[in-house]
Order: sequence, then structure tokens, then C-alpha cells
Amino acid sequence: MSEPAEGKVWKRLLEVAKEGDAREVETYLEELDDADRVHALAQLDSEELGRVLTIVSAEHAAELLEEIPDAHAAEAVGELHPHDAAEILEELWSDERADIVARLDADEADAIIAEATPETTESLRHLLQYPSDTAGGLMQTEFVAVPASLTAQEVIEHLRENVERYADFALQYVYALGERGELVGVLPLRDLLLARRKRTVDSLMISNPISVRALTPLQDLFELFDQYEFLGIPVTDDEMKIEGVLLREDVDEARVDQAVADELKSRGIISGEELRSLPLLTRSRRRLAWLSLNILLNIAAASVIALYQDTLQAAIALAVFLPIISDMSGCSGNQAVAVSLRELSLGVARPSDALRIWWKEASIGCLNGLALGCLIGGAAWLWKGNLALALVVGAALGLNTLVAVSIGGVVPLVLRRFGFDPALASGPILTTVTDMCGFLLVLSFATFALAKLAAV
Amino acid sequence: MSEPAEGKVWKRLLEVAKEGDAREVETYLEELDDADRVHALAQLDSEELGRVLTIVSAEHAAELLEEIPDAHAAEAVGELHPHDAAEILEELWSDERADIVARLDADEADAIIAEATPETTESLRHLLQYPSDTAGGLMQTEFVAVPASLTAQEVIEHLRENVERYADFALQYVYALGERGELVGVLPLRDLLLARRKRTVDSLMISNPISVRALTPLQDLFELFDQYEFLGIPVTDDEMKIEGVLLREDVDEARVDQAVADELKSRGIISGEELRSLPLLTRSRRRLAWLSLNILLNIAAASVIALYQDTLQAAIALAVFLPIISDMSGCSGNQAVAVSLRELSLGVARPSDALRIWWKEASIGCLNGLALGCLIGGAAWLWKGNLALALVVGAALGLNTLVAVSIGGVVPLVLRRFGFDPALASGPILTTVTDMCGFLLVLSFATFALAKLAAV
Repeated sequence: MSEPAEGKVWKRLLEVAKEGDAREVETYLEELDDADRVHALAQLDSEELGRVLTIVSAEHAAELLEEIPDAHAAEAVGELHPHDAAEILEELWSDERADIVARLDADEADAIIAEATPETTESLRHLLQYPSDTAGGLMQTEFVAVPASLTAQEVIEHLRENVERYADFALQYVYALGERGELVGVLPLRDLLLARRKRTVDSLMISNPISVRALTPLQDLFELFDQYEFLGIPVTDDEMKIEGVLLREDVDEARVDQAVADELKSRGIISGEELRSLPLLTRSRRRLAWLSLNILLNIAAASVIALYQDTLQAAIALAVFLPIISDMSGCSGNQAVAVSLRELSLGVARPSDALRIWWKEASIGCLNGLALGCLIGGAAWLWKGNLALALVVGAALGLNTLVAVSIGGVVPLVLRRFGFDPALASGPILTTVTDMCGFLLVLSFATFALAKLAAV
Repeated sequence: MSEPAEGKVWKRLLEVAKEGDAREVETYLEELDDADRVHALAQLDSEELGRVLTIVSAEHAAELLEEIPDAHAAEAVGELHPHDAAEILEELWSDERADIVARLDADEADAIIAEATPETTESLRHLLQYPSDTAGGLMQTEFVAVPASLTAQEVIEHLRENVERYADFALQYVYALGERGELVGVLPLRDLLLARRKRTVDSLMISNPISVRALTPLQDLFELFDQYEFLGIPVTDDEMKIEGVLLREDVDEARVDQAVADELKSRGIISGEELRSLPLLTRSRRRLAWLSLNILLNIAAASVIALYQDTLQAAIALAVFLPIISDMSGCSGNQAVAVSLRELSLGVARPSDALRIWWKEASIGCLNGLALGCLIGGAAWLWKGNLALALVVGAALGLNTLVAVSIGGVVPLVLRRFGFDPALASGPILTTVTDMCGFLLVLSFATFALAKLAAV
């Protein structure tokens, strides 16, 4: 139904862009509802999107960049002339600007920085020095700071003069500075509102406020914002000078990003966001890196089967059960991985809990291994009416379920302890070990019971 | 290193709780740092945690409930006497309270509601009527509303009197009401601060403010909060009476929850949060529901192998490659699933884009299929030196990669179009179809080339 209509939107956008009239393109984009605009822009490749960005005003282009995913925005900005790119990036908030520039090649980034105003250049160099998973990488450089000696009335007048510079959510606190420009207090907007106007900031402010260093890692920031209800927190240097402000909204966004990245990893997209607007070869290469590793591990695991070629030849029905045991053990083990990853991120499990977690998983492994073993054994019996076959595949799957949940539960903790990313590495380790072990179990049981299995 | 020390924390907590002295338990808990407290509480089963909650003051118990995951909190509250439970829940914010009560059995919830104060009962009944993925299910019932006819000075005095009732972030806007109590405007705290004190609210406020209905779904809320920078939005009924306020912070939390739930689903945890503090049988049963479905699908897929028993017997080396083809096709397909799910949630892909997405995936499928086919074919050739074997398994994996990414890319869109949850159902559909197709490809190619394969 909507296919042709939607198809038209981005094609029409391209046509309008081809005519190159700024006003017409802007009007066309503004008339779309937000969802349609995001969707239409996403259908353009980076060159086409770059073209749209150069036609419209820099201010308008910046708004478009805010609406689309950073990965796509950066690709398009990379297509622009550095001068045009710098002009558009000027219009963004400091942290959004840095997010985009951080995704560019070093050459492209340098060229753009060279074209930017001194203020923007400094803010960019400042923000880009910190990794994106630290307070410094997430903070904004826009904030309100006043000498602690001012009166409430003077602060209000200062705000009146500067109010246009700050978005709603960036202006919830006024930071109070001491004589050397160091942070000495925080004055929430609410307290300023309720205060007598002649009082001075230092009599109203919260002294010794909580602040973080630029290199404070994400996980600590999550805990801090969970524990306190503030909307933002100042980022300070060694001398307590304010480098920027970290907003709750940006920390929450980082949390969403992390959860999304973990989900992508669980499905094998490991090099960050992949959108279909990125170039084919980039997408293919990134996916292949993961697939190549996995195929090597798969070959290693399956080589166990080659060792039992004679058994398999004597009881060919077993070949049907090998992929089932491999898949099902992966399934069971992945459930345990999921729970361990979740408990790690909630802080309710720690690497040192490995033994306790293994015990809890082993209990489930016994129950579920029994159930799955009976199911697969029953299926084998129904198919061939051979009790030995049923016992061999049932026992192998049952035992391997126990192995799989044990590994799945414990491996994420071990990886975390040694500083590896558990969301990334748990899957391949799990499937390789459980495949090997599963094949070994079913084929060695079968070798043992070969006399009873012959000719199934 | 830390194992024994950490082990001691929760055991010591149990010992202190057993002595039953409120002050001592509270002191012990307060002395722990936050991370240790969360971790120690998580080691308690619901009965033990319930015991701790009844010993300490209701206010203290409420703080503990806020720190631990809702699933665990609800289990423990379910263990309490309804009167004790009601007393503790009184101390929570309205939305947090409703989150916990919503997870209880209906009987337990009713018993607790019967013990609550009339105000709490009404707030609970009000919030619980809305599904948790709607504005009504996420809103708070605490907010500040004043007649639009008041002056700024009168509003400030009203706030002074009530300031204790509101947390920092819940008090960013004052809602202005008309004569019938309907919402007529919103006054941001910042504008109130900067206003002359004799001006009336209706001359300062933003008229016709954006508001949502209680049943507005999550996805629309995400888009709304992306588009605007407000910290909260009023939830109104048919007559524009305010039912509650939806805070950005709660919408962000819902977004994290959704990303986490999707990751859990991708690993086969489908019935919501599983923590190891939940009862063994509950955990085992929930996981088995998913595993049982998967084993049936696996058996169906593997039955294709049974059809080609003779081929397999004649070229037993193929048995080594069957699990590899099954696993690798699942891997490739899951990458495509991940990208489609992500694009759906970003709004850059829609069900009507299926054809275009299929085309984009097919291009990658050709490239990656070729690469993986060469890898596995090369491995087969190195192992057996049989070109036919290399061609059969290489061609089968290559083609099946194309099939897998096509299905993986398109199935999530189709599921979304028909109202199913793509994060949940894409996996099993993908692996069943690609397994069947992979087995069929390799074994039918092998049957065709059997003369050249004999005795590998």
C-alpha cells in the first residue's frame, strides 16, 4: 500500500535536490513529517546526502544531521568540502559535533578542523582527546558559570542576557567559581528561583559539589547517575577548573548505545553500527571479519567428527543428530551467557562469583538437560525404534546441555576478569567448546554401543 | 583475592539480619559502598531479602528496593505480609511503586492494595490500568499544577511551601490550569525565574503545550523526546485534565529496557528479566519453553538429512560439513537480522522497504558467500584432496549464505508488518529455513556428483 508513496518521497527528494534550489529543498523537507524525513534521508547514499546538505543552509543541514544516525551523518560529512562541513558543524552542540568528527578519517577531520572558527577548533580538540566511553568523551563544553560572590539578582540578570545560548536541559544548574576560577559550588535553578534576590551565590550554593574527571569510565558514570537524581554533573581537571558538563540525557544515551552495541554483537555485528546506507564493500568486509573467525572455529570443532568416521559410517543415522546437538547446545549455553551478561551489567554478579554461578547454572543444566535428552531420545526412538540410538543421542545432548550452561554462565565472568569484552567473545568460545564436546560425546558413546547401533 | 571478602559481605548481612536488630542491619548496610550493597542484596533469595526488608524501617526498605532490579524486588515484596509491603511501597515514587506491583501475582497485588492509604490505592489503580509500554504505564502522578491566573510571585510561594515533595528532576515545569481544571499551558522553571514577579502565569506560559494520551505507545514517545528537548511532558485525558507527567528520564529508561530485552531475546531469554536469585524451577521452566520450540524446529530441519542417508553413507566426509554449514549460515543470517532490527528501531527501514533491503543484502550475500565458499572449499580440498567435495561444500555454503542474508534481512520487516515481535521470532525462523536449505543444497549437489565423491 504505502510502498509506492514512500518510494516516491526519497526519489522526489533527490529530484528536488538535483534542481539545486535551496528554498525548494528546505520547504520540501519541512513539509515531511519527522518519521518520513528520517526515513527518506536514510535511503540516500553518502554522496546524495552530502549534496542535500550543501544545498540547504548550514543551520538547516545541522538539523538534518541531528536527526539521522551518527554513522550515516559522518559518511555524508566526509563527502563535503571541508569548508562547507566546518560551517555546518559550527551549528551543532559541541558534543554532537565531536561525535561526528570522531567518526571521520584523520585526514578529513584535520581538514575540517582547519576550516573551523578558533572557538570550535578548541572545543573539538578538547573533546576529541577523550575516548568516547569516558566523561570527557560525553560532556558538553556549554555551561553557565559565575563568580560565587555574585548575588542571586546578578545571576538572574546574567542568565537573561545569555538565555538564548542554552537549551532547556543544559541550563539546570549554575556553577559557582572561586577566585582562581575553580569550581566551589553548584546552584540548582530551583534554589535560585526560591532564593531572596540579595543573597549571594556562595550562601545559596551546594558547596563541595560532586564532580568527575574527564577520564572517569562509563560504568562509574552509570552508577553515579543511578545513585543521585541530578540532571548534570561538572567535569573538572586537576585544579578543579570546569572542563565541561555531563548531562543525564547524554549518559542515558550512552547506556542505550551500549545495550544496542551488545545486541548487535550477540548477532555478529561487531565493528559498530552498520547501516545499509554505508558502502557495500565496507559492510561486506566488516561482516566477513567475524565470519572468517567463526568458520575457522567451526572447522576446528567439526574436525572431531572426522576422527569418528568409521562409527558414523556404521550408524549413519547419527549424522542427523550432529547438527541438532550442536544447535541446541548453543541455544542452552547462550541463555546462560545472556543471564551472566545482564547480571554483570547490573552489578549483581562479579567475576569472583564464578563458582556460585556455575553451581546455579549446573542445577538448571541438570533439569533442562534431562528434559532435552528425553525429547531428542524420544524422537530418535520414534524414528528408528532403536533403544541404543535413543540412549546415545539423549545422553549426549543431556550431558552437553550441562556443559553448555556451565560454560555459558562462567565464561562471561572470566572474560570480564581478564579485561576482555564478554558480550563479544562469549559466543564463539561457547559454540566452539560445546560443538567439540557434543560431537565427542555422541560419537564416543556411539562407538561404545556400536554393536547395538549397527545399520540404523 | 576478593572472593572470600565478598563472600563474607552477604553472609554477614544474613547473620546480622538473623539477630533482627533494625539499627544494626541499617548501619551495616549504610556502611557498605553502593556497589557492594547491590551485590550483597542480589545474593539473597527472595525470602532472605524479604526478611531484611521487614527488619529495617519502611523508608530504608524502600531505598533498598530502588537499588535492586525490579524482578528481584517484586519477588521479595511478594514474601512480605501485605501490611508491611504496603507500608514500604508508600515510600516509593508512584511510578516505581507501580512497576513493582505490576510484577506481583494478582492475589498478592490486591492484598497489598487493600492495605494501602486511599491516595496510594488510587494512584496504583490509576497507573496499573495502562500497559507498561505506554505513556500511562511510565508516567508519575506527582507534578505541580497551578491556576493560570496566579502571578509569578504566587507560584513561587506555592513552590516554597511544597518544595520538599518534589525531586529535582520532577520539578522542571509548572503546569497551568484553566477554570475547569484543564491544562492550558506549561511554564518552564527557567522562564519563571527570569520573569517579573507580578506577571500572571497565563502571560508567561507556553500555550497549547504538547501533551500525550495515556495509551500513546513507546515508539511514539521515543520519537517525541528525540524531536524536542523537553525534560517532561504532561499526560492528559479526553478533557485535557492532567493524569500524570512523563519524564525524559523514564522514557530513556524504557529505551534501555527495550534494548536489553532485545539482547536477551537474541540469546533465548524471552520471558523477561531472569536473575539467578529467582527460584530454580521458574528459571528452568522459562528457559525450557524456548528450548523445546527450538528442538522441534531443529528436528524438522535435520530430517532433511535423513532423506539423503544413502548419499551420506557413500561420502561420509560430508557429515563433517553439515554442522559447519548450519552454523555458518546462522551466523551470516543473524548479521542481517541485526542490521534490520536496528534499522527498524531507528526508523530508517520500514516493512515496505523489503524489496530494497533484500537487494542490498543479496549483494553482500554474493560477496560473502563467495568468500566463505572458497574458505570451506579450500579446507575440504586440503583435507581430502577431492575437487568434487570442495566444489560441493563450497557451492552449498556460498549459495546458502545468499539465502541466509536474504531471509535474515527481510524476515524482521515481514514480522513487523504482521505485528509480531521481530527480535523474538526472526532467529528461529532464520535457522530453521537456512538449516533445511543448507542440508538440501549440500546433499543434493553431492547426490549429483556422487560418482566423483565416492569413498571420501
